[in-house]
Amino acid sequence: MAESPNVYIRAQQIVERCKQLASFSEDRVGTRRAFLSAPMRDCHKEITRWLKAAGAEVSVDAAGNLHGFYAGSEAGAPRLLIGSHLDTIPNAGAYDGILGVLLAVSLLESLEGLRLPFAIEAVGFSEEEGVRFGKPFIGSRALVGRLDEELLNQQDADGISVRDAIKSFGLNPAEIAGAAIGEDTLGYLELHIEQGPLLESLSRPLGIVEAIAAQTRMEFVFSGAANHAGTTPMDLRRDALSGAAEWIAAVESTAKNTAGLVATVGQITVKPGAANVIAGSARVSLDVRHGSDEVCAEASGRIAQQAEDIAARRGLTVKRSELLRQKAVKMDAFLTEQIEKAIRSVGCEPHRMVSGAGHDAMILAEKVPAAMIFLRSPGGISHDPAESVEAGDVAKALQCGLRLLEQLAHSSEFLKRTCRA
Amino acid sequence: MAESPNVYIRAQQIVERCKQLASFSEDRVGTRRAFLSAPMRDCHKEITRWLKAAGAEVSVDAAGNLHGFYAGSEAGAPRLLIGSHLDTIPNAGAYDGILGVLLAVSLLESLEGLRLPFAIEAVGFSEEEGVRFGKPFIGSRALVGRLDEELLNQQDADGISVRDAIKSFGLNPAEIAGAAIGEDTLGYLELHIEQGPLLESLSRPLGIVEAIAAQTRMEFVFSGAANHAGTTPMDLRRDALSGAAEWIAAVESTAKNTAGLVATVGQITVKPGAANVIAGSARVSLDVRHGSDEVCAEASGRIAQQAEDIAARRGLTVKRSELLRQKAVKMDAFLTEQIEKAIRSVGCEPHRMVSGAGHDAMILAEKVPAAMIFLRSPGGISHDPAESVEAGDVAKALQCGLRLLEQLAHSSEFLKRTCRA
Repeated sequence: MAESPNVYIRAQQIVERCKQLASFSEDRVGTRRAFLSAPMRDCHKEITRWLKAAGAEVSVDAAGNLHGFYAGSEAGAPRLLIGSHLDTIPNAGAYDGILGVLLAVSLLESLEGLRLPFAIEAVGFSEEEGVRFGKPFIGSRALVGRLDEELLNQQDADGISVRDAIKSFGLNPAEIAGAAIGEDTLGYLELHIEQGPLLESLSRPLGIVEAIAAQTRMEFVFSGAANHAGTTPMDLRRDALSGAAEWIAAVESTAKNTAGLVATVGQITVKPGAANVIAGSARVSLDVRHGSDEVCAEASGRIAQQAEDIAARRGLTVKRSELLRQKAVKMDAFLTEQIEKAIRSVGCEPHRMVSGAGHDAMILAEKVPAAMIFLRSPGGISHDPAESVEAGDVAKALQCGLRLLEQLAHSSEFLKRTCRA
Repeated sequence: MAESPNVYIRAQQIVERCKQLASFSEDRVGTRRAFLSAPMRDCHKEITRWLKAAGAEVSVDAAGNLHGFYAGSEAGAPRLLIGSHLDTIPNAGAYDGILGVLLAVSLLESLEGLRLPFAIEAVGFSEEEGVRFGKPFIGSRALVGRLDEELLNQQDADGISVRDAIKSFGLNPAEIAGAAIGEDTLGYLELHIEQGPLLESLSRPLGIVEAIAAQTRMEFVFSGAANHAGTTPMDLRRDALSGAAEWIAAVESTAKNTAGLVATVGQITVKPGAANVIAGSARVSLDVRHGSDEVCAEASGRIAQQAEDIAARRGLTVKRSELLRQKAVKMDAFLTEQIEKAIRSVGCEPHRMVSGAGHDAMILAEKVPAAMIFLRSPGGISHDPAESVEAGDVAKALQCGLRLLEQLAHSSEFLKRTCRA
């Protein structure tokens, strides 16, 4: 299983395929491909063609995930899943998610019919971004048996439920349970663009995800008194926006002074929201992430206390609600070490890092050993049409993937692993 | 012209009439009465009844202003205008504007047929708030000859122009010029709620407006880089909202450190506006007011420079646009002195103040001596259904108005004044 000299040709092909599939969009301009949309079917069709040519059996499970099963050297061999997601946000780039699926396809193609002691299942998840139903990870949740009644009843903006969307796509929601992975699954590997500027700032093409960050998401509503901007002296004001602004500065300062912490206020809405009226209320979002659950919780608590203190000093009130508290998810130590070895063997210096973004690997890790390889994101740009990837980095990722498969094929420890399912 | 002992009964009646007219609304819940709306016609009808009973001739000019002409002792006597506006913002209180019109009506009623050496024209302006067409003072602009073609072509949210709205109300836009005040106008007096907390904080029922504040309105757009909230380390961010928040704090600080200055950021919109995305841009409003043109301009300039400095330090850009630069408008010194005397004579301590809000008096002052009396606003509340007024303060305002009329009737200086029209 030596690297074919055409790894660079394959890398170019992967990039071309990403660009081609980006044209499968719900929007006339820009890429938008939500859960079980019409362009998703076109996307399946195209990838199916490539998978079949590589010698894989293709199926779509009841949650709309695309599977390409590439059998092992013996019937009943356990399987390694390799994949990522096929859905996109609105006005998306061409690589977030789908690059990982096409790398999996290309790995199968690169095997050129060679069979390993384990089967490989390429997976294209139907839904990760949470755009259509406001809930992310619908596809991967099906694989870990968590696409439950509540999620099936969730409705999109048009009042269509997940269940109805599945039926409309020609699938059977009653068969969801059958999408869950079996005990023959050895692990899950995901290749994904970094979506951040860190690898670029370190001049490294590939990164190893050690953990997916703990995340807290909260909402704060500062309330004061809406009043006339011209007739209310400064010392008689209870300006909700001024209070929120002071707090936003405190959020930034807290994050800058806590190593590895990121904290973001990305949304703000003031009422009444007129240029000549003092803000009576300001609703703000807070997103806090860190590789450690403890640090994340401590920082979130400190920031919440800052909101209380600022509000009290200004005669405002503040209400907060917690929308999400997600624990950090560790990637599998064995697979992570194997990836590190594979990266070195293709001549790259690996960088171990915490992923600030959530990924399907986080969900799969509930049941099976999971691991992730990041590819450098030029300019750190993601969730934007300007999102890109260097073909050279894709070649390194492909080489690294092939080395990893070779290592695992020779690892008795790997082949002994059993699924937690 | 002695005060009738029933001044307190009349004051109660004024408050009751305000409440009654507040039910003439475009909305089923809350008061909203825009320019030439159906409830404005009902409002005219009711006030017309009261004006006629007081002995006034009633007309509606081509800009939809209601006029009640109460003749003087001799034919051709010059006239004093007393009025305010009849339109409201959405979800308005019951007193902003209309209280001044009903005080004018009550002054005519209080005269009980007595004729003065000058005529009195009660005026209910059709439009002051700028709600329907985004341009305030449509009514008073007609009286100073500034309801021009540009304003007539201005469209509301439904694409209806001011001209068409006038036609639909059964009026003739070709007659707009005829609404302009003539050379026989001695001056304009407006009674209005303060819409602020100052008189209440001083325990004074009535205030005298010396000037209407200079005002600058600007918009700033801070631009940075929208990026993933989880994957972009704090030191690699260019967060437009964090920059805007720092600037909002600077705006507040500048205003607090400049005597008499008010500065307000009442609007903020961030893009893309998602909890998990760093803000790429933040659009914010700025409203700055002061009794002195120089102080207002200097402070506005300083605040704009602060935006530049903050943006530069953070690697952001900032663009600003000036939406309004309005000079301070002085009220007439003679009328202001006469008002001060009248307030004292009814047992109140007058307070001279700058109005932070714009009023029709500001427009009328372009052509005639104009003056304003403020009535204390309980809690400083205005532009809100909780807006109120004390009947006792209304009685003081009515007494003060009657004293003022008496003083002016005996003032040869007043009767000699000629209009700048």
